[in-house]
Amino acid sequence: MKKNLLLTPGPTQIPPDICAALGRPIIHHRTPQFQQYLKDAVEGLKYVFQTKSDVLIMASSGTGGMEAAVANLLSPGDKAIVVEGGKFGERWTELCKAYGAIPVVVKVPWGKGVEPKQIKEAMAANPGVKAVLITLVETSTGVTNDVRAIADVVKNTEAVLVVDAISGLGVVDCQMDNWGVDVVVSASHKGFMCPPGLAFIAINAKAMKMAEACKSPRYYFDLRKAKKVMEKETDTPFTPAIGIVIALNESIKHIKEQGLEKVFAHFARLAKATRAAAVALGLKLYPDDSCMSNALTTICVPEGVDGNKIMKVMRDTYGISVAGGQGEELKGKVIRIAHMGCIDEYDIITGISCLEKVLKELGYKFTLGSGVAAAQSVFNS
Amino acid sequence: MKKNLLLTPGPTQIPPDICAALGRPIIHHRTPQFQQYLKDAVEGLKYVFQTKSDVLIMASSGTGGMEAAVANLLSPGDKAIVVEGGKFGERWTELCKAYGAIPVVVKVPWGKGVEPKQIKEAMAANPGVKAVLITLVETSTGVTNDVRAIADVVKNTEAVLVVDAISGLGVVDCQMDNWGVDVVVSASHKGFMCPPGLAFIAINAKAMKMAEACKSPRYYFDLRKAKKVMEKETDTPFTPAIGIVIALNESIKHIKEQGLEKVFAHFARLAKATRAAAVALGLKLYPDDSCMSNALTTICVPEGVDGNKIMKVMRDTYGISVAGGQGEELKGKVIRIAHMGCIDEYDIITGISCLEKVLKELGYKFTLGSGVAAAQSVFNS
Repeated sequence: MKKNLLLTPGPTQIPPDICAALGRPIIHHRTPQFQQYLKDAVEGLKYVFQTKSDVLIMASSGTGGMEAAVANLLSPGDKAIVVEGGKFGERWTELCKAYGAIPVVVKVPWGKGVEPKQIKEAMAANPGVKAVLITLVETSTGVTNDVRAIADVVKNTEAVLVVDAISGLGVVDCQMDNWGVDVVVSASHKGFMCPPGLAFIAINAKAMKMAEACKSPRYYFDLRKAKKVMEKETDTPFTPAIGIVIALNESIKHIKEQGLEKVFAHFARLAKATRAAAVALGLKLYPDDSCMSNALTTICVPEGVDGNKIMKVMRDTYGISVAGGQGEELKGKVIRIAHMGCIDEYDIITGISCLEKVLKELGYKFTLGSGVAAAQSVFNS
Repeated sequence: MKKNLLLTPGPTQIPPDICAALGRPIIHHRTPQFQQYLKDAVEGLKYVFQTKSDVLIMASSGTGGMEAAVANLLSPGDKAIVVEGGKFGERWTELCKAYGAIPVVVKVPWGKGVEPKQIKEAMAANPGVKAVLITLVETSTGVTNDVRAIADVVKNTEAVLVVDAISGLGVVDCQMDNWGVDVVVSASHKGFMCPPGLAFIAINAKAMKMAEACKSPRYYFDLRKAKKVMEKETDTPFTPAIGIVIALNESIKHIKEQGLEKVFAHFARLAKATRAAAVALGLKLYPDDSCMSNALTTICVPEGVDGNKIMKVMRDTYGISVAGGQGEELKGKVIRIAHMGCIDEYDIITGISCLEKVLKELGYKFTLGSGVAAAQSVFNS
């Protein structure tokens, strides 16, 4: 019997009561009962997105939510500033190109966060830019960007700030209204501890006005229609992913019970312990100190050891899943241990303990137990 | 305790073992284990679609699959023939317009199937038409279109035939390869007895060639990319709806165990009994005899009785869900009893029995038990 523990940055571990909710008999979506689920889900999402604006739910994975942002905000020929500091930043560029918008790419070295002044300079050099597209947690590198400081740069301009918070929402702080973010995209299978299959998009009045005027083709991801149908009929324009919306209600109950502040502190603690463990094992952390994410920890593997092998042995032999490195830059060179999802300190202890076992097997020299002890010392301080 | 039986045309009743599969702990999608599920799902879909062509799986509801067809096949300014004989035919028109394609609308009176010669005439009058967009089962009216005869008209032309088989696939016969259909769209929550959240699209070489040349913007629904990623990595381009893909494996096992021929015969029998019951109750069937669907039965409600009230009382008081009428044409005037999903003869008996109870309550005069007896007589012959 293996544990099959997911310490991966999406999908994340689903709590047993949410699994049970997913196994319930299905109900029809055009019923008062489901309308209540939908309404409660939207209210709960507003709490987690920290917004009073509309939050719309779509049946798609997170990328569908990103496409909804681009297709509703950018017309062909429009310029958008895109921050590329990893694989998910690159997705914004690809989306802009797919829709004939012109991405003004701000390149950031992998492992670093974007400097707000880079955005400021790009905006000054490109008057008339319609949107700034950034990533809250760049999962491929383990970086959290300083959304608040970026919002300070964008908020008094004509442009809208769009944050891909698929990874990180409900895990690290992201105050849509207070900070002045216009659009936030997220999904069901990371901080929300549900299976993949739902995208969420929060959109304020400034951005919705832009959506009304936008000329790009859209139908399934048409936010004007989604807003109208939700307001008039408490419904989605197309059949919703019923089961996951119901599961989301359970997830939101968990988050609300704790309160966002405690939730963020919990993940910060898991991250702190994981980092301490890595350092105690003599391993380097990949991201810069200044932007290291509490959603996941990216650890450089020791010289001569293949990170993908660590990942595979942990998963296939011992049933503990972490993620390997993505892209030419990081393949085989890092492992990524996520803290998102239904993860507690004992899951982190388990993950570190398994990492130690596999590092030993692969011939890396260190004091067995030193990683776990360092994590314990954080958890018990 | 209510039964909460779904005799609705999507979502449909999910068998208990599929509910249980949905409640299992999640696994990661980038694992050999999930790749096997994905591979088996695609193989199984090919069996049900009756095709050797690619079948691609997307995380969206069925409409996303329809959008994938339009966005990958039609460039702005392209002409497409669209059959409008109900609400879902109209969706093709809306999608064409959203993408700047020009819909040539073939209007069919509600309750009737399209005549193949109408398509032939429309094609003759519009040379250079790129696609013919039709509906297998028009759920809003209860009609099955004669896809085979339409394919005979389209198959030796430059145009591709695209069938929205969201409703009806795995319920009524639709032989993609044998009949010469180029693209078939379906979804998880009707014949496949799973929750909504997956769209399927089968696309042959002729249509894929058109997708390569198409100029419409697309990213999430880009079929070129989906085909490439599936072939090279047994993966989907974006995080799949993991839980529903796993459930789909169970559903396909059920369908394969029976074999398509038996499955179609089963639904034909349920439809025959439902029709017999309606007639015995003195009610008229809405669609023409020639095109009445085996996927659902649309029954005209008696003069002076509100169809929506029947639907609501059956659902809210007795826990048996049927569908009401859609659109100005049919709202309140019909009820629709679906046979799709995990439905057996006793579910139909239950549905008819509940319909009789509610008709009595609403003052309609008939011999109590006559509907159930008529259904039983079909089931026992």
